[in-house]
Amino acid sequence: MTPSTTNGFGTLYGIGVGPGDPELITLKAHRLLMAAPVIAFPAPIEGESFTRRIVAPYLDGTGKEEIPVRMPMSADRFPAQEVYDRTSRELGAHLNAGRDVAYLCQGDPFFYGSFMYLYSRMADDFRVEIVPGVSSIMAGGAALGAALASRNDTFTVLPGPLPAEELAARLATADAAVIIKVGSHFEKIRGVLAASDLLSRSRYIERATLETECVLPIEEVDPGQVPYFSMILVHKRGDAWKT
Amino acid sequence: MTPSTTNGFGTLYGIGVGPGDPELITLKAHRLLMAAPVIAFPAPIEGESFTRRIVAPYLDGTGKEEIPVRMPMSADRFPAQEVYDRTSRELGAHLNAGRDVAYLCQGDPFFYGSFMYLYSRMADDFRVEIVPGVSSIMAGGAALGAALASRNDTFTVLPGPLPAEELAARLATADAAVIIKVGSHFEKIRGVLAASDLLSRSRYIERATLETECVLPIEEVDPGQVPYFSMILVHKRGDAWKT
Repeated sequence: MTPSTTNGFGTLYGIGVGPGDPELITLKAHRLLMAAPVIAFPAPIEGESFTRRIVAPYLDGTGKEEIPVRMPMSADRFPAQEVYDRTSRELGAHLNAGRDVAYLCQGDPFFYGSFMYLYSRMADDFRVEIVPGVSSIMAGGAALGAALASRNDTFTVLPGPLPAEELAARLATADAAVIIKVGSHFEKIRGVLAASDLLSRSRYIERATLETECVLPIEEVDPGQVPYFSMILVHKRGDAWKT
Repeated sequence: MTPSTTNGFGTLYGIGVGPGDPELITLKAHRLLMAAPVIAFPAPIEGESFTRRIVAPYLDGTGKEEIPVRMPMSADRFPAQEVYDRTSRELGAHLNAGRDVAYLCQGDPFFYGSFMYLYSRMADDFRVEIVPGVSSIMAGGAALGAALASRNDTFTVLPGPLPAEELAARLATADAAVIIKVGSHFEKIRGVLAASDLLSRSRYIERATLETECVLPIEEVDPGQVPYFSMILVHKRGDAWKT
């Protein structure tokens, strides 16, 4: 975590910008975003960065230096080690020149995010500070209008790419769960939920907190139209969850 | 979710105010807090509300009507149904009179919070909006300086009051986990971690994001000094976690 800014080096901030609604960034994230001269963020190989779009109302027109970190968005291609190697050198040059860098992360930086790949490369040599953010999972509970977990419930986060047998085994023992990174894995997951008799206890949520937010029973989802950033919430007991 | 404010009734906002640092409330939480004429929040039977203290820099001196919802903080006494019955009537009177009410929740309103008890009583009769917040779990990852979960890790949230056998069984199959509501259950949990050979893979975190934040190896924790709002993070694989 050394050297500090006081000796002339910049600080790298890993900033959670929340699930999508620009108003769901924290006051701290907003302050650091406005103060940093260099802003970096994940982006697809071509086109607009969803992460940058979250803060566009604050960032547009400021004239800051922006560094889109472009890589394939497909989970199968992660981690793109050479991209992180190159990015850590580029950001390090700014820090060595005394410029703070804000690296924006959708949701929270350390919860299934890509920031850890930069953190592991840079935290020994530079001052790095993590600013936690609102996870899309909490946004999913708000969209559904039902508690994710309560009292002594266990709550399990399950990545959608896991094999069907593992998803089924873990759902069998969970009180409540969220399946993330649904995308192209939707049909496999629907099959697991059906075989586990959990369809009526599950809800599909996409683009939580955006104007295009959508909450659907599993049977009404078009499997061809499921984005990577979607989730399925499952609860075995909560009254609000029963169809 | 009806009636709406346009017909003269107020809206009840369930607002997550984050883990403790006043700067980790969202812009939306701040806006609604400043706009609402009536502010309610959980509080102990006697003394200061930790939830209110998070927003004290913004709330102090505004002269808003404040409603501390006082109840025993001990998990064993939850839920205090009569307190929620009475509070829902009190808040409903404000809403019927056209006054918006902001109900403040530590962390996120629907993630192991008490707001669900008011939501279940009031959502049929009033307009209720949930504002998700930063969970203390994400704050714990930031305090530790290590990713909570990555790629296809599963991540399990385990309440500390669960029996030792259940904690052990769930930790045996988890990739990464957080044990919440540690408090008086610390010695039981330490025993489970030792028997599971997970002590070197675990970290104790208390008061994350506050100035008194503290991260300790399990063996260095004084069991007599563990607050209810503390957590233990466990990760089977992450390099940063190994003592």
